[in-house]
Amino acid sequence: MAVKFDRLLYGGDYNPDQWLEYPEILEEDIRLMKKAHINTVTLAMFAWAKLEPEDGVYDFDWLADMIDRLYENGISVILGTPSGARPHWLADRYPEVLQVDEARRRQIFGLRHNACFTSPAYRKKVRDINMELAKRFDHHPAVILWHISNEFGGECHCPLCQQAFRDWLKERYQTIDEVNRRWNTAFWSHTYQSFDQIESPSSIGEGSIQGLALDWRRFTSHQITDFCRAEIQALRDAGAKKPATTNFMYNYPLINYHEMARVLDVVSWDNYPQWHHQKEPVTAMKSAMQHDIMRTLKKEPFLLMESSPSSVNWVPVSRLRKPGIIENASLQAIAHGSESVLYFQIRKNRGGFEKFHGAVIDHYGKEDDRVFQECCQVGDDLEQLSRMDLGRVESQVAVIYDWENRWAVEGSCGPRNENMFYKETVEKSYYAFRKLGLNVDMIDGTQELDCYRIVAAPLLYLFRPGFSEKVRRFVENGGYFILTYWSGVVDENDCCVLGGTPGGLMDVMGLRSTEIDALYEGESNEMVSVDGGKTYTCEHLCQLVKPSTARTLYQYGKDFYAGTPAATENVFGKGKAFYICADAEQAFYDDLYADIAAQAEVKRVFAQPIPEGIAVSVREDAENAYIFIQNYNAQPTAFSPDLEGAEVLLGVMDGEMKPFSTVILRKKK
Amino acid sequence: MAVKFDRLLYGGDYNPDQWLEYPEILEEDIRLMKKAHINTVTLAMFAWAKLEPEDGVYDFDWLADMIDRLYENGISVILGTPSGARPHWLADRYPEVLQVDEARRRQIFGLRHNACFTSPAYRKKVRDINMELAKRFDHHPAVILWHISNEFGGECHCPLCQQAFRDWLKERYQTIDEVNRRWNTAFWSHTYQSFDQIESPSSIGEGSIQGLALDWRRFTSHQITDFCRAEIQALRDAGAKKPATTNFMYNYPLINYHEMARVLDVVSWDNYPQWHHQKEPVTAMKSAMQHDIMRTLKKEPFLLMESSPSSVNWVPVSRLRKPGIIENASLQAIAHGSESVLYFQIRKNRGGFEKFHGAVIDHYGKEDDRVFQECCQVGDDLEQLSRMDLGRVESQVAVIYDWENRWAVEGSCGPRNENMFYKETVEKSYYAFRKLGLNVDMIDGTQELDCYRIVAAPLLYLFRPGFSEKVRRFVENGGYFILTYWSGVVDENDCCVLGGTPGGLMDVMGLRSTEIDALYEGESNEMVSVDGGKTYTCEHLCQLVKPSTARTLYQYGKDFYAGTPAATENVFGKGKAFYICADAEQAFYDDLYADIAAQAEVKRVFAQPIPEGIAVSVREDAENAYIFIQNYNAQPTAFSPDLEGAEVLLGVMDGEMKPFSTVILRKKK
Amino acid sequence: MAVKFDRLLYGGDYNPDQWLEYPEILEEDIRLMKKAHINTVTLAMFAWAKLEPEDGVYDFDWLADMIDRLYENGISVILGTPSGARPHWLADRYPEVLQVDEARRRQIFGLRHNACFTSPAYRKKVRDINMELAKRFDHHPAVILWHISNEFGGECHCPLCQQAFRDWLKERYQTIDEVNRRWNTAFWSHTYQSFDQIESPSSIGEGSIQGLALDWRRFTSHQITDFCRAEIQALRDAGAKKPATTNFMYNYPLINYHEMARVLDVVSWDNYPQWHHQKEPVTAMKSAMQHDIMRTLKKEPFLLMESSPSSVNWVPVSRLRKPGIIENASLQAIAHGSESVLYFQIRKNRGGFEKFHGAVIDHYGKEDDRVFQECCQVGDDLEQLSRMDLGRVESQVAVIYDWENRWAVEGSCGPRNENMFYKETVEKSYYAFRKLGLNVDMIDGTQELDCYRIVAAPLLYLFRPGFSEKVRRFVENGGYFILTYWSGVVDENDCCVLGGTPGGLMDVMGLRSTEIDALYEGESNEMVSVDGGKTYTCEHLCQLVKPSTARTLYQYGKDFYAGTPAATENVFGKGKAFYICADAEQAFYDDLYADIAAQAEVKRVFAQPIPEGIAVSVREDAENAYIFIQNYNAQPTAFSPDLEGAEVLLGVMDGEMKPFSTVILRKKK
Repeated sequence: MAVKFDRLLYGGDYNPDQWLEYPEILEEDIRLMKKAHINTVTLAMFAWAKLEPEDGVYDFDWLADMIDRLYENGISVILGTPSGARPHWLADRYPEVLQVDEARRRQIFGLRHNACFTSPAYRKKVRDINMELAKRFDHHPAVILWHISNEFGGECHCPLCQQAFRDWLKERYQTIDEVNRRWNTAFWSHTYQSFDQIESPSSIGEGSIQGLALDWRRFTSHQITDFCRAEIQALRDAGAKKPATTNFMYNYPLINYHEMARVLDVVSWDNYPQWHHQKEPVTAMKSAMQHDIMRTLKKEPFLLMESSPSSVNWVPVSRLRKPGIIENASLQAIAHGSESVLYFQIRKNRGGFEKFHGAVIDHYGKEDDRVFQECCQVGDDLEQLSRMDLGRVESQVAVIYDWENRWAVEGSCGPRNENMFYKETVEKSYYAFRKLGLNVDMIDGTQELDCYRIVAAPLLYLFRPGFSEKVRRFVENGGYFILTYWSGVVDENDCCVLGGTPGGLMDVMGLRSTEIDALYEGESNEMVSVDGGKTYTCEHLCQLVKPSTARTLYQYGKDFYAGTPAATENVFGKGKAFYICADAEQAFYDDLYADIAAQAEVKRVFAQPIPEGIAVSVREDAENAYIFIQNYNAQPTAFSPDLEGAEVLLGVMDGEMKPFSTVILRKKK
Repeated sequence: MAVKFDRLLYGGDYNPDQWLEYPEILEEDIRLMKKAHINTVTLAMFAWAKLEPEDGVYDFDWLADMIDRLYENGISVILGTPSGARPHWLADRYPEVLQVDEARRRQIFGLRHNACFTSPAYRKKVRDINMELAKRFDHHPAVILWHISNEFGGECHCPLCQQAFRDWLKERYQTIDEVNRRWNTAFWSHTYQSFDQIESPSSIGEGSIQGLALDWRRFTSHQITDFCRAEIQALRDAGAKKPATTNFMYNYPLINYHEMARVLDVVSWDNYPQWHHQKEPVTAMKSAMQHDIMRTLKKEPFLLMESSPSSVNWVPVSRLRKPGIIENASLQAIAHGSESVLYFQIRKNRGGFEKFHGAVIDHYGKEDDRVFQECCQVGDDLEQLSRMDLGRVESQVAVIYDWENRWAVEGSCGPRNENMFYKETVEKSYYAFRKLGLNVDMIDGTQELDCYRIVAAPLLYLFRPGFSEKVRRFVENGGYFILTYWSGVVDENDCCVLGGTPGGLMDVMGLRSTEIDALYEGESNEMVSVDGGKTYTCEHLCQLVKPSTARTLYQYGKDFYAGTPAATENVFGKGKAFYICADAEQAFYDDLYADIAAQAEVKRVFAQPIPEGIAVSVREDAENAYIFIQNYNAQPTAFSPDLEGAEVLLGVMDGEMKPFSTVILRKKK
Repeated sequence: MAVKFDRLLYGGDYNPDQWLEYPEILEEDIRLMKKAHINTVTLAMFAWAKLEPEDGVYDFDWLADMIDRLYENGISVILGTPSGARPHWLADRYPEVLQVDEARRRQIFGLRHNACFTSPAYRKKVRDINMELAKRFDHHPAVILWHISNEFGGECHCPLCQQAFRDWLKERYQTIDEVNRRWNTAFWSHTYQSFDQIESPSSIGEGSIQGLALDWRRFTSHQITDFCRAEIQALRDAGAKKPATTNFMYNYPLINYHEMARVLDVVSWDNYPQWHHQKEPVTAMKSAMQHDIMRTLKKEPFLLMESSPSSVNWVPVSRLRKPGIIENASLQAIAHGSESVLYFQIRKNRGGFEKFHGAVIDHYGKEDDRVFQECCQVGDDLEQLSRMDLGRVESQVAVIYDWENRWAVEGSCGPRNENMFYKETVEKSYYAFRKLGLNVDMIDGTQELDCYRIVAAPLLYLFRPGFSEKVRRFVENGGYFILTYWSGVVDENDCCVLGGTPGGLMDVMGLRSTEIDALYEGESNEMVSVDGGKTYTCEHLCQLVKPSTARTLYQYGKDFYAGTPAATENVFGKGKAFYICADAEQAFYDDLYADIAAQAEVKRVFAQPIPEGIAVSVREDAENAYIFIQNYNAQPTAFSPDLEGAEVLLGVMDGEMKPFSTVILRKKK
């Protein structure tokens, strides 16, 4: 059941523990927060050393005081469990908590993310403090949510983890013979004689068994998820009733968030796009897709847990956000289903790694500051929007972006080892739908297809068990399915499908994939319409196919495979299956997907074309649609959609949208 | 004495041990092999875990069955010794077999090439299984050759290797004082007080003694060669009579193949050019040079042991081979003296590191496959050629490419530390000869010169002992000798020649090398003919010289040394010595070498010029010359050589050669 | 008190210990040295293994002989202490002397710079041999100077160093609470409970506490300085009276030379510019600035201890020095206050890491050698100049280049993490002054300002304690002060100034710095004069400021901050403070500084403009100015300064200066 808050949350991380010697600053912070319409802060995330200064000695009073003061000022609290940064004494007393890296070097205490998620000692200490925090604070009316640890990630190769990995494999495969069969270890005589011989991949050891590498990824993801689960269990065991989340990251590779989302009550995440590096509409689209990934994990509202109110400080070059970008990016989160806009952080640290990271309150500390002013504006917007229920995001189309496929396609050794461009390929499909003003669900290979009119599966190298059967039913029943090159190549252990690819779908697609050509950087081919339409360019990868029942839509224009299919369609049952053979340019996707959307009779919010750079998103409830129109162009952009029956809730709709501006409409359904 | 087979061998690596659970596939494989004219497979190379599943327990029956079945189908067997990939239990029981890297980290079991070649335990286990294999299979009529291990390489810095290195040094230099003198260790006070102090070069230790680094290279090469020798000895000690080889690699740096070739009965190697990355004629030339290196090791026929029938999977970008390339590349091997065309591999692995490496039989598994069809064509060609004795390759010219020089020139710290372009410089000389249609021997500094009309010694920084005397005699007796910049600079311990360079040859060359200028990327100089001929560009390195008796042919066009010699010739005895001062463009080499070849009255197979992109090679016996003409251009290329008395054995000779096509002629001598 | 020699020293490093078996070469060396006017050599720097072949057994006789022979030939000796390269037996017997790297790997013996500066065993052995050397040689009339070790550097992370670091911190901060406060360790819960927990920064440990990193830099610098101090103390304790130096390096980061200079009697350094990589005038300017840094350390004459008479061999590409460059570069040192021109080295090594490093005598060994001839010319020049007292260098302007700021600005994590261009920014200010013919002092943030008319403080991110007060007084009293973007941001522990920046100088500068924009490579902005003057470009970093009393001189031309100040001036007290907001092009600095110099009424040696590429420097005594005019252009350059009252001491002054030529004038004051 979805977690609901009584208002859109606005605020961010706040670390009063770093300012306890500056009482006048703590005072001033609350004044400034209220001025900026801040209603929520996240506390105590990195405060373990303050909360438990010595092993077993807790000091929560400063935190209790702070929560009380915030509450008195109408500010809610998201309460962190402190495992995101561990105290020194923990590593001194229990050295097993320190990670061992892939080269088998035990780390020294430092940084943040270097703890072992298997260590019983570490789990015990985390459980203890979580229970104490729950007992003390869960009932406090200010506390609305538990924030577990911080940006889980990393991997540990210590002996405890090796043993846990072996146990996990034993449970998964039962016998060592089955492991050998699944991983095809006979290659290079790597046959295991017993589970005890299995070691995680290492630059000074095994790097050639792709089945091992893939299962190590699964295990790492599983182990961190289990750690998070145990953290929440500790809260519950102490009687906590408030919901729990942890903050996910932007396109983070090492955790299958689909699995981790299951142990959470609500999904939340941290969004740090690099504004002004690429064209702003592209940056906006990439963030939008990440929002939609987060929303689709549970198909429920989510939280934007962190973002920067100005620059970050850990990229090679930190450009200032141009005026309007923060507001637009904040409202984008809401448009895609977030119930919050939260920043890292309220006040800039005095010293330390992130002392120059953007914050609502600068070291300068006063309110005549551009960033602070913009934060006030965003707070004002959200306060307005909080007065209504904006409903939910619903989608008619889906794009598959699958963690296990990602691990496999990037971990294998095939036609291109420099870059397979998996994310970029998925983004092309996503962007093509978004340019039609469609909401998009970002599902993985295990989720249901039947609720969609169109499903795109770009570069789906690894088919999850049962996937091809699911696609077959979907198309038979009238669905529109799009598959690309290098799909259906391997099974769940990264072993090759025998007898022809795409595995299990040759009849549905009406063709067989034969060879795949990889092009050097700078090389390209052409995709020529067989019906006299446009010609597009493609690069990086060109799959050669042999059609059976499929009709050729485009054919290659160059090389020895000129004239063979570059894109096809195949009627199958009541539906249709499309196959894109090569890494086509964005325009190809745009035109093809517009055509397919028309064939599939997908409903669009505006009949007229949406100008380049403008993004349209919709939230809806039973009666109303809430339409977010955002201009990400650095120039004013003409746009006059059909506004009949629409009411402007925010912004100005006069035929031209200002740079980096948002309009929100309400329209009866 | 040269090893002879009764036909050209065609086939490749075959790993039935990975398919024992798929009897229908093993059945089908034999049918498909016969269809493709395959007559030879290499077995058991990576099968140790199957052959000896536990320490001391052998299971050879599956292999015996397979050999019998192949024999019944007319397919010969090259039998591998299994040390190329070791079983897990070996590392568990004898940890000393695991390599220690240069940073002194003991490796974990994994990959292929991480065993210590010194370890007595490892040598014992290899000897045991080799003897067992020899006893069981050497007499089998299917078995025609032993294939020792696989692609020997790597280096180990373990304590056992350190001790072996010290012993090797003691034998070479007798006393520690002699080591100090040879390596000039007084520099930076690195004088050794005893052999026990000597440690191999390391990124966490010694990196400044170039004599040490060079001797470590020699020792590593020696130790692997000795390991290979011991493997063969084990076979002989068990009574084996069949010849033995191991597969060399393309330009592999760490083993002096001239020395390793001595322990083998026949040389074989693995050729994996990156087709379509550079212009195809360049790629073909580079492969041709490697073929000629392999042939010149023993000056006997050799085997192409591995190649890919389509792409490989371990390069950054794997382009598909265009139609015709595989046939052309296969016949190129024969043209240069190979008695085989063998692939890695017959059937693609189901899983593992090389599951996407090209193979005769795809995962698809059926014969309507482009690659399979091309393999059938090559098989057919070779079957035709097998009907005649093609004779041998003979050369009138030689280019020196010397492993010890390579180690020294790349390991030293001189005018350029980014890249000295040693191989590229050698290739320029090689290509210049090849463009004249000449066969070329690729000798090292220890081989005889007297059998040639012309010898080129490009960038020969290190003169092997006795080399300058050999050159002196060669030129005195009428030979044409070509030397370049940065030659004759150091002795065999990478210590500088005193008194002037090129060491021992100042009178033969008629000049002294003074300073050497290194140019930044993008900079160049000019080489201006003093006789009104062409001007060429040069880059990277410009040697300044002071002529004594030499005549200047070209002089520099720019910089403060404009007007000083850029190339010279010197009459010495009955011969002539040429000196090329700078890294000239290819055209300079082409024109100069054509001129020298004319002066030296070298015989050419065709009087007319050979078009760019066409390669001409000759094999000959007492009566006939077999002329291979190969077009490596992607376009049809006009060529009408004088065919009088020539018979076309393969291909079409009609004045224009098709892209990637071969013609073979027989001509009475 | 300044160390004085009775002539300009000319010569360099000489390692007869490597040639003891070649008596004819030692003989010839002395003949060639005298021919080249060499009067000084540095001995024994890398001879420890020869001086103490076994632990405690000294053999100094060969050195005594050599010193006698040199003395007989009129050649003085700079005597090295041998710690720059340690003998093998030292590491064998006292393994603690081997460095531990940041990843905590104990090094193996090798290279030069891998000893621990804390190790008591190492300090003891160095003290012993230094005392022996002092007793034996200090009184020798040939010996004029002690040369301590060689190019001190590196860092060690061994347990002994960790403990020394903790002790150093304890002395600096007294309590662990104070450490926590200074480093703001509360961030990420890194609070230390005790000093014992502190570990130096490591890639496998702490990398996020910038205060720790900065103090580790301070400690490392301190520890090496203390080692050097102890070496000198050993000489003194043995009764040595001769002065002592050690050779500093070009822009070396790890030692604060301002502190190390204090333990030396005279500063000396090694200058290895990469001639011909950039335009020669730029390379000359960069070397000049390093000379001025060295001179300003003590504000006394210094020594050029090493330079190459031709190329070096350890850069990626070693271009030959064009004729004239060596002479010009040698006289440049004198112009900037050096009392010597010394080379590494007299004779090229036969083997070893630097065997191809330039030397006065080549492996060839004879005098008909271009480099040797040029060395003779330089020797002749210096002999002429030695006949007069050239006086000292005095400056009216100073540029701040501060080691602690350098550590902080490069070690922090802010607007740009790729490159902050600190040195390049300082060079722009330096070059702008030099183009006016002004001598420049290169001070750090602790030195006095009151002796200057103008002080520029580019990119001074970290203000040393008391710095802002010093600036305030300087401007109040009539000084001209120039500050740039990203200045006054942090305190001495790299913690941020609260309440506005530049810290403590907002009123003096008449503005507040607000945000800072970092531009991607290739992006730029414009600085537009508000008075109708020129427009300049800027890149990398653009500070936004809010003026209070400052007057805007230039404003930005682009981006959302177009029209806001890009450079300002502020009258404060009797002086003026200028603020440059962005990384402006050189021309901006040139024009602005010319204007400021005019306002400040700085005296210039020539009234007319100095052509691009010509450098003017002045030494002076009570009566005379010695004016060095050097043309660094590769072309002849017209220049006719006012020569009234000037006498030409060296070179030709006829209205056009030859490429790479020097003129020296004497002019009565």
